[in-house]
Amino acid sequence: MRVLGRHYLLELWGCNEKIGDEAEVRDAVEEAVDAAQVTLLGDVHTHKFNPHGVSAMAIIAESHISVHTWPEYGYAAVDVYTCGEDARPEKALEVFKRRFSPERMEVHEIKRGILV
Amino acid sequence: MRVLGRHYLLELWGCNEKIGDEAEVRDAVEEAVDAAQVTLLGDVHTHKFNPHGVSAMAIIAESHISVHTWPEYGYAAVDVYTCGEDARPEKALEVFKRRFSPERMEVHEIKRGILV
Repeated sequence: MRVLGRHYLLELWGCNEKIGDEAEVRDAVEEAVDAAQVTLLGDVHTHKFNPHGVSAMAIIAESHISVHTWPEYGYAAVDVYTCGEDARPEKALEVFKRRFSPERMEVHEIKRGILV
Repeated sequence: MRVLGRHYLLELWGCNEKIGDEAEVRDAVEEAVDAAQVTLLGDVHTHKFNPHGVSAMAIIAESHISVHTWPEYGYAAVDVYTCGEDARPEKALEVFKRRFSPERMEVHEIKRGILV
């Protein structure tokens, strides 16, 4: 069985205050790109919402990494979606766990593009 | 039970040739943004790969819409992730189905940020 992509969906609860800081979220995504050994296309795009919340998105040659945060709930939704054998998406997950210090973390892995 | 986000993951197989055309994919994402009644932040970002494949990404106030295509397999992976009660993500799904004409379509709905 060959799979085109691995898509990790992270549900992070009880995160620290960094998830409300646009620069911190951007730094986390940039470190995650490096850690996963993937290729960033363009810049990491970020948006700060009023009054709460940050979105960040990296388009990578291997698919994408995204973060959407709800600081008022201590919650962040992170997606790490990579294709190819060389990417190390699990290393990206470690970056978000270390930086945002969630009290609780759920990880779902969805295989995308299963070739049978 | 309150849910912060609804995340639809589409697996489209047997798509038409439009999935290999950067402008067509961009148009599809732009129409999907309108159909879902969500707010685009900035432009739809696209990338054409050599020799095959297109990625497109819309950061929206309600989270994101992404498309990654493998024309050599007739395959497209589409994500429609929205938060809030006003978004109509199911309308975006219809746009991709109509434009890419997949022979087979799987849809997974993942609830993100379940508040209990």
